[in-house]
Amino acid sequence: MDKALAYAARHRDRFLADLIELLKIQSVSADPARAGEVRRAAQWTADFLARIGMEHAAVVETGGHPAVYADWLHAPGKPTILVYGHHDVQPEDPVDKWTTPPFDPVVRDGYLWGRGTSDDKGQYMTHLFALESLLATDGALPCNVKVFIEGEEEGGKGMTHDFVRDHADLLACDAVAVSDTSWMSPTRPSIVYALRGICYLEVKVRGPNRDLHSGMFGGMVQNPLNAIGKLIASFQDADGRIQVAGLFDDVLPLTEAERAEFASVQEPEDAVAADLGVPALWGEAGFTAVERNWGRPSFDVHGLWGGFTGAGSKTVIAAEGGFKISFRLVPNLSPEKVAKLVAAHVQKHCPPGVVAETTYLHGGTPVMVPADSPFIQAAAQAFQDTFGQRPALVREGASIPITAVFQEALHAPAILVGYGLNSDDIHSPDEKFKVAHFFGGIDCNVRLYDAFAKVPR
Amino acid sequence: MDKALAYAARHRDRFLADLIELLKIQSVSADPARAGEVRRAAQWTADFLARIGMEHAAVVETGGHPAVYADWLHAPGKPTILVYGHHDVQPEDPVDKWTTPPFDPVVRDGYLWGRGTSDDKGQYMTHLFALESLLATDGALPCNVKVFIEGEEEGGKGMTHDFVRDHADLLACDAVAVSDTSWMSPTRPSIVYALRGICYLEVKVRGPNRDLHSGMFGGMVQNPLNAIGKLIASFQDADGRIQVAGLFDDVLPLTEAERAEFASVQEPEDAVAADLGVPALWGEAGFTAVERNWGRPSFDVHGLWGGFTGAGSKTVIAAEGGFKISFRLVPNLSPEKVAKLVAAHVQKHCPPGVVAETTYLHGGTPVMVPADSPFIQAAAQAFQDTFGQRPALVREGASIPITAVFQEALHAPAILVGYGLNSDDIHSPDEKFKVAHFFGGIDCNVRLYDAFAKVPR
Repeated sequence: MDKALAYAARHRDRFLADLIELLKIQSVSADPARAGEVRRAAQWTADFLARIGMEHAAVVETGGHPAVYADWLHAPGKPTILVYGHHDVQPEDPVDKWTTPPFDPVVRDGYLWGRGTSDDKGQYMTHLFALESLLATDGALPCNVKVFIEGEEEGGKGMTHDFVRDHADLLACDAVAVSDTSWMSPTRPSIVYALRGICYLEVKVRGPNRDLHSGMFGGMVQNPLNAIGKLIASFQDADGRIQVAGLFDDVLPLTEAERAEFASVQEPEDAVAADLGVPALWGEAGFTAVERNWGRPSFDVHGLWGGFTGAGSKTVIAAEGGFKISFRLVPNLSPEKVAKLVAAHVQKHCPPGVVAETTYLHGGTPVMVPADSPFIQAAAQAFQDTFGQRPALVREGASIPITAVFQEALHAPAILVGYGLNSDDIHSPDEKFKVAHFFGGIDCNVRLYDAFAKVPR
Repeated sequence: MDKALAYAARHRDRFLADLIELLKIQSVSADPARAGEVRRAAQWTADFLARIGMEHAAVVETGGHPAVYADWLHAPGKPTILVYGHHDVQPEDPVDKWTTPPFDPVVRDGYLWGRGTSDDKGQYMTHLFALESLLATDGALPCNVKVFIEGEEEGGKGMTHDFVRDHADLLACDAVAVSDTSWMSPTRPSIVYALRGICYLEVKVRGPNRDLHSGMFGGMVQNPLNAIGKLIASFQDADGRIQVAGLFDDVLPLTEAERAEFASVQEPEDAVAADLGVPALWGEAGFTAVERNWGRPSFDVHGLWGGFTGAGSKTVIAAEGGFKISFRLVPNLSPEKVAKLVAAHVQKHCPPGVVAETTYLHGGTPVMVPADSPFIQAAAQAFQDTFGQRPALVREGASIPITAVFQEALHAPAILVGYGLNSDDIHSPDEKFKVAHFFGGIDCNVRLYDAFAKVPR
């Protein structure tokens, strides 16, 4: 292990150069026009795995964007760890808001800036460079390792989930190591034991069969865009509580112990508000901002469209418009059930004179791993040895839907050993990844495989 | 007059060809890129006026898009009529919804199809062809006529209103003849004695200083697009009544006589709903659809934007979004006062955690002409002689803001002798103008000038 750590320290410049090469590939999975780029990122990753001595390294077809698989299974009696990550990235728009181009990464102020630096290329590559360091020095790994890097975490057809279900034997493991989460602050390492799920939908509202002049028809018909406002408003009361009937029936309440642990790590709310540039944080009454984000369902409109949005003032009643929304889900909410509740809500609250149609676009089940899992404890030790303090055990507000699939199809806990920061702006312009966390993550993963190897089977 | 009518009958093919030439000019005043096209439409009109023998025909600069002026003032002792129209047109988007190209007009099924056919090139040209027919046959007009065709009725800087105020002497007249309105049906001619005004605004809502990931921040902040929904919903209650405090203080109620007259001309509401393809008409409780459209203020969202609207499902909390709205105004609402009330409403109802900014884009004062005006009675006679029945005296829901300026600056009533149809789709794809109304309008205007000439000064 020490030789591997020394190797990693010697090769930092090359690791960074390799990562930048990968980041230049525009693997935006939500954009059908860049499907070829997603495949190129998969091929790059498979080539890398083969080069460092992982076996069976290959691009694997999922029916959607391709994934990458490789393994090294020569540690009989030891646990098998599945390393998971995703080589696809978020769309870069609005592209004019980036300080430097999203797909031409640069190091500045201690960070590597670019799309995918933190989410997730920079993070999954910490595992692959750790594997390289171990294989190049020890000629072996301390435990059995399978690598599975998918290509449609941020968009696409979501066929990868079916691939995992259909290839449970290939991917069988004792635990999944996932580096796709972040710390509250650079001074407070954390390991995540729960993630929210998501239920993402689109609602289209149709009124008249053609655009109308608002003078000639204003007052006669329900305007589809007025109706969109009414529908959006119907989802949340003035106290920020979601108004979808039945949604709270299944919500697992936060315990007092959890609320106390969260309070010990959270930043002051006024500091967060100042950083975000908002007058104040806001959300469901009776909960702190961190409690709302980690342990309560949330409702967000992600996009809305309709009518005339150009320069000038067109007096049109648009024939139709729409909006995209999601609900973040906490244990024990099911995305399929929430989708049905939301569709019923839309029908019930659709204003008279227009027709609304709800489409369920995708979902992910919330995930929780018991905090006393030996893999969690092993990871905590690796963190302590690398970053000098015991990590906080926290939740996260974001979704990694595939972790629910691992839980269900592989019966394996997802150990969320992330090296990002909350301030990485991972779905926004100017995404970044702290360079010290990139190198620290590589070292931590070297220790992680060693610690995992000691977990009794 | 009979010679003029005979001349008009003989020249119908050429009139139609001339109109199509004008319609091919893409004079979209809301589009800064097509300012040159607007000027070309002005020049075409000025050239036409000079060719038929009108005097002082010229493109006149307004500071915004140019207007056209011409006159013929050789009927001492007779009234002076100002013919008003506009040579600019609405934007053609969504252009893919047109059956035939918007700027390549064709005759089909008894209609001329294209942008500007009914609003307003086809309509103002009925006056210019009538003037040609009179001048070509009588060598004179029965009354004094000034022609003023503006270029920014549908968009632009609105400098034409200032031009009218600053050139009240040039445009001084006894009445303004405007053909920019429409009939309820082809079998029921109508003259409009009141138009609604308008107050058009844009609201921008700003939240965090950057786009955020809805997993990492969902539940912590007010989402600007959620807030847009709440703001839009705040403007109208479930009964369709506008909720802007103070707005109804100045509304002139409809009389029972007016409601009875409207009821006598209105189409069955289920027929209108079927034509529009909506489940039912809808609006302020306690009023018929026609009463709401002609005699009550209405609230419409014209466009909304924000966040991710492309393919796929981006989980973003957008930093900002916005929407365009208007209120149609009835007598005695003032657009400036309504703009202030709306801005106050937005501040009062802006949800916590975001900031909203209201911009007043433009306004027009509502207009009413006494139904017993001798010019209205003269126009009614010309209609009866041309179309075979006495026209209904009705209101219209649309705005022609400049008619309020004529009322105020020239102290002249606007006589709204329109030849369009409610079904002309004037601000939508597939705008059209009934060919029989184009030719009938020319004949009717020949009679109109004759009838106006008999009104005592």
